[in-house]
Amino acid sequence: MEQARKGTNPLVVVFDVLGTLVDHAGSLAHRVSVVAGIESEAAANVVRQWIDHVSAQERAIIDGRRAFAPSHELDAEALNWLVGEGLLPPDALAGLTDASEWLQPWPDTVDGLDLLAADVMVLGLSNASRRVLAGLSGRSGLRWHQVLSGEDAGTYKPDPGIYKLAMASVPAGSGPPFKVAAHAWDLRAAAAAGMRTAYVPRPDGDPPGPDDTFDLHAADLRDLHAQLLTLEG
Amino acid sequence: MEQARKGTNPLVVVFDVLGTLVDHAGSLAHRVSVVAGIESEAAANVVRQWIDHVSAQERAIIDGRRAFAPSHELDAEALNWLVGEGLLPPDALAGLTDASEWLQPWPDTVDGLDLLAADVMVLGLSNASRRVLAGLSGRSGLRWHQVLSGEDAGTYKPDPGIYKLAMASVPAGSGPPFKVAAHAWDLRAAAAAGMRTAYVPRPDGDPPGPDDTFDLHAADLRDLHAQLLTLEG
Repeated sequence: MEQARKGTNPLVVVFDVLGTLVDHAGSLAHRVSVVAGIESEAAANVVRQWIDHVSAQERAIIDGRRAFAPSHELDAEALNWLVGEGLLPPDALAGLTDASEWLQPWPDTVDGLDLLAADVMVLGLSNASRRVLAGLSGRSGLRWHQVLSGEDAGTYKPDPGIYKLAMASVPAGSGPPFKVAAHAWDLRAAAAAGMRTAYVPRPDGDPPGPDDTFDLHAADLRDLHAQLLTLEG
Repeated sequence: MEQARKGTNPLVVVFDVLGTLVDHAGSLAHRVSVVAGIESEAAANVVRQWIDHVSAQERAIIDGRRAFAPSHELDAEALNWLVGEGLLPPDALAGLTDASEWLQPWPDTVDGLDLLAADVMVLGLSNASRRVLAGLSGRSGLRWHQVLSGEDAGTYKPDPGIYKLAMASVPAGSGPPFKVAAHAWDLRAAAAAGMRTAYVPRPDGDPPGPDDTFDLHAADLRDLHAQLLTLEG
């Protein structure tokens, strides 16, 4: 790493994973369609309710209304709820419990992380549990200098605690890390914790509003890499 | 990843870091020599006492005699103790506080991890704190599918809790992971927790005794990769 050899402070980039680096909803919908034998629009609707159910539980944890549970347990609860609602057949459960470990990366993700890792420190920060992060990273080829889970903070984004954990986990002497995400709500919380921000558009993302002032807007990871190198110069 | 595409269970390899992938004592001794302006044998002796001091504190934490503190805080305590003992000049402190983030990888480490990551899931499990793991991984080019710290378990190796954390963090459906280390004491504790074991010899390691029966003995990471591929076949 050139900057490390020069002894200057390293540039640190902290990636959101679900939705930003992997196709969260699309990958789950494809799997639901295959496993439950339903057509893709119905599968997408089931997945929307699955993700909403998990998000509601994450919100309950952030608000202190329930104890922390890792994301794979929330997935299991959501699937059982979907079966109870009659939206999934009971025999689909076994084929879906580990679906979050098989999410597909966006086309630029793996090469983009490789490119970035040659020049900056690449961290992950995700609501996915440790086991889910290990599974999807290993299967998709996402490789990290460090990767942190909501499990490490005992809470979920956008709770300030998870961003504080990331700030405490960057190397000594590094400047404020960049948070990279496809969700404006994630970047707003990261900025409030003192991180710099980079927005990357993705399908199903949360685009910036008129009042958002993020530090960088990148078309994709290759563009992000080019913009970060300009900053370093 | 071929095996993932085939849908079989992934092979998971969990690496010790300090001493196994990076030259812990040698890198610190070099830095002490440069920063404190003392010759290399004296620097090696200072580092032996530094590492022993940290190990004693880790043992106190494992035994419940003190609360958990991350490795960079134990490093800072050890350095202050060394100054108090007259073994280091006070003005060396500033140049040594982040020394653990600059440990040098062994010659086969970076290429070996790249080679392994193409075929198996590569995890790290270290007594180094999250910030130290981020710093040394980013600066040396160690890249992980998942990396866990003693900080995640609130204890240190060889406490069973840290191996239990690793076992709970492997992907669903994977078999028992391989623990890879240059220290027999680490592999014994890993085996007790249900992990498979692979010994790799390194300078300053802890070689197996006559009663040790580890699953694999590899000359280096390239050899480890070859042996693991044979198992998968």
